[in-house]
Amino acid sequence: MKNIIILIALCLGSHIFAQSDEDILKQIYKSALVEGKSYSWLETLSIDIGGRLSGSLNAERAVEWGKAELDSLGLDKVWLQPVMVPKWVRGAKEFAYIKASSGETTNVNICALGGSVSTNPLGLTAKVIEVKDFEELKRLGEAEVKGKIVFYNRPMQPDLINTFEAYGGCVDQRYMGAVEAAKYGAAGVIVRSMTLSLDDMPHAGSMTYGDLQVSDRIPSAAISTKDANLLSSMLHLDKNLEFYFKQNCKQLKDVKSYNVIGEITGSQFPNDYIIVGGHLDSWDLGDGSHDDGAGIVQSMEVLRLFKTLKIKPKHSIRVVMFMNEENGLRGATEYAKVATTNGENHIMSLESDSGGFTPRGFSFDCSDATFNKVLSWKPLFKPYLIHYFEKGGSGADVGPLKNDTNVTAGLRPDSQRYFDHHHSASDTFDAVNKRELELGAASMASLVYLFDKHGI
Amino acid sequence: MKNIIILIALCLGSHIFAQSDEDILKQIYKSALVEGKSYSWLETLSIDIGGRLSGSLNAERAVEWGKAELDSLGLDKVWLQPVMVPKWVRGAKEFAYIKASSGETTNVNICALGGSVSTNPLGLTAKVIEVKDFEELKRLGEAEVKGKIVFYNRPMQPDLINTFEAYGGCVDQRYMGAVEAAKYGAAGVIVRSMTLSLDDMPHAGSMTYGDLQVSDRIPSAAISTKDANLLSSMLHLDKNLEFYFKQNCKQLKDVKSYNVIGEITGSQFPNDYIIVGGHLDSWDLGDGSHDDGAGIVQSMEVLRLFKTLKIKPKHSIRVVMFMNEENGLRGATEYAKVATTNGENHIMSLESDSGGFTPRGFSFDCSDATFNKVLSWKPLFKPYLIHYFEKGGSGADVGPLKNDTNVTAGLRPDSQRYFDHHHSASDTFDAVNKRELELGAASMASLVYLFDKHGI
Repeated sequence: MKNIIILIALCLGSHIFAQSDEDILKQIYKSALVEGKSYSWLETLSIDIGGRLSGSLNAERAVEWGKAELDSLGLDKVWLQPVMVPKWVRGAKEFAYIKASSGETTNVNICALGGSVSTNPLGLTAKVIEVKDFEELKRLGEAEVKGKIVFYNRPMQPDLINTFEAYGGCVDQRYMGAVEAAKYGAAGVIVRSMTLSLDDMPHAGSMTYGDLQVSDRIPSAAISTKDANLLSSMLHLDKNLEFYFKQNCKQLKDVKSYNVIGEITGSQFPNDYIIVGGHLDSWDLGDGSHDDGAGIVQSMEVLRLFKTLKIKPKHSIRVVMFMNEENGLRGATEYAKVATTNGENHIMSLESDSGGFTPRGFSFDCSDATFNKVLSWKPLFKPYLIHYFEKGGSGADVGPLKNDTNVTAGLRPDSQRYFDHHHSASDTFDAVNKRELELGAASMASLVYLFDKHGI
Repeated sequence: MKNIIILIALCLGSHIFAQSDEDILKQIYKSALVEGKSYSWLETLSIDIGGRLSGSLNAERAVEWGKAELDSLGLDKVWLQPVMVPKWVRGAKEFAYIKASSGETTNVNICALGGSVSTNPLGLTAKVIEVKDFEELKRLGEAEVKGKIVFYNRPMQPDLINTFEAYGGCVDQRYMGAVEAAKYGAAGVIVRSMTLSLDDMPHAGSMTYGDLQVSDRIPSAAISTKDANLLSSMLHLDKNLEFYFKQNCKQLKDVKSYNVIGEITGSQFPNDYIIVGGHLDSWDLGDGSHDDGAGIVQSMEVLRLFKTLKIKPKHSIRVVMFMNEENGLRGATEYAKVATTNGENHIMSLESDSGGFTPRGFSFDCSDATFNKVLSWKPLFKPYLIHYFEKGGSGADVGPLKNDTNVTAGLRPDSQRYFDHHHSASDTFDAVNKRELELGAASMASLVYLFDKHGI
């Protein structure tokens, strides 16, 4: 009798092993679309928790939530990995207006950039010099810039199909604007929000002071694209208008936070790791649904799918919720450091941090040989309309894990709407479509499954 | 001197002719994204005009608007093509509730289906029999169905990646539900709305009575998916509950309407036609932005792009705004009839009627040889992330133009969000993203350009 049971078990077992890649991918997509948890997870993270800037209480609530959810998935290991993170606080809401020479004022929608110093408590008033780039700033020099507010107003380029390229072509204004303007004695910096849409919302984001001394640091803020257009056209009419803004932000001491990690331990190569992840922190103006709540819940869904479909990976599969991508990358740095210390061999690291939109494919940082192997899997994704397999660009959080053997990769969702929401008050749960989110999770799980099964 | 001018002109001319397909496509996409008119056109059509059911005053306003806009484009010809269309009117807003055996009532969101008769003026109250398909209905037969309201509740299948397939798998309930239920003496029909989302809105659409005599026609309506789930679960608890609904719709006499047509006449083959089109009519619950305002303004944009970029087509290029796709297809039928009468040779007919979402590619009804030619252009679309080139399925309005030589084609946008809006109160302008709409228009213009230049 015992032998018969073993025989039956073997038959069932071989039946499972006999399933084709096509079959498994079909099951993955079906489960994600029919019984997936990513959308309801995102609802909790976005609505119940909300924006979760590094070092904030909400970020800690997100850590607790993430760990509890992973605990419920029946993984082999779940733990918190401590990491010190910067704690920048916005303080009371910012306020700004344009003051024409006539004295007439027009309110402006503004937000302090992450890492900026505050204005003095009464705010900053100064004339405005508009520039398109650092070259123009340099040409104008101290004579035109000193004592003024530098207004960076180079828009994102609408004819670039990939909106991340358009972002990449402008974000120097936001990130480096203060450092550059301070060279010429500017009193402050305002920057056109990084979005292709004409909207009324300032879009936040990080900035740096480089190695500027504390006394030389000038306040730096973003204004909405509509207000940027308004200010620019008013400047044409009234060169002597003044801009006023007041912000109350502050850089506090670093605080302790955590990466949240869960693992299904590999059956054959437990010390070879495939990770999927996103970042748990977000900016504070919206609830961080697309950036990067989506990546978090899709990564969780990958492990749920493995458990639900009883896929037993050969390599260890980890979900990593990185802390502090937005303004420090401390979580990613720490994760990579610990991995090195522990001698963990990462073979594939997949990040989702481009929004929860319809997935179009993946991008890879890897050798040509590996990439060709990946391309051989492309036909498996055709039924799911996943066609984009390109080299170049994975993601910020998997960056510190790059080496000669680890394949780093990024999910590439449709990018058209991403910057409508990015870092703004409209990055909210209602802007995420359930099916689009789920298709992304299924695509990630499929890629992980293929890497695990066929190796590189 | 004259010769020199001619020489210069020839050089400039040859420079223009020397432009590669890559260059032209780049210009097309750039113009659509930077200075395109599709989005502002759609704003007018959606917000200023709104829903435009065939035969309604709003449909006539849309005709006037369409003609005026085409007149402003400097085309070679613009005209109205008369066509008689059905005029079905919804009348006063529908009303419905579930009445439990205990007498307790729960309101339900309902809308009459296009073409349905009204209930009697006091409304219809009857017990409910829930079915998943016509097979189940047949099994139950007259014994279980007679005098009851048949409730079709088969949901769209969420694990189908192309949501149009999921729609195709369910829409028989809406279109044929009354005919089938009437066979067994049903008093009326309610159908679960055709959407994958769980929402509170009824989604309209057309239905038929086939050859049922007028006296045998039973009222037919859609209820929201949330209310369908509610009704189904209440039926499990209370088989004897009753459903009440009252609707005031009416089929009036046919009225005169128009297809709106504009043409750039071909320089070499003026009697060979390439057409781009969508349908100008819409359902009445929303403003018809995705279905099919998007297709209308994208088709207009194709001709604007040709004019703006000074592309002089060899074949005649027409934009056709078809009237009455939703409940009759009379415009498309008339257009094809007139084309045949006039001996117009249509070589390619491209329709956009799947929403204004990010374009993924095209589908084609054509011979294998033609399709292989089309596939040779695929690399030109790669920079624009247009990858889907498949045979099968073009569109309803180009259907009557099908023959052995005409290539009929459909734009294939991302389909994930389409049925969230389709035929409902949420098919509104705010649900359309500017860039996604523009990318669709540019993709259509590019395909038309390639067909015109390289022929088939």
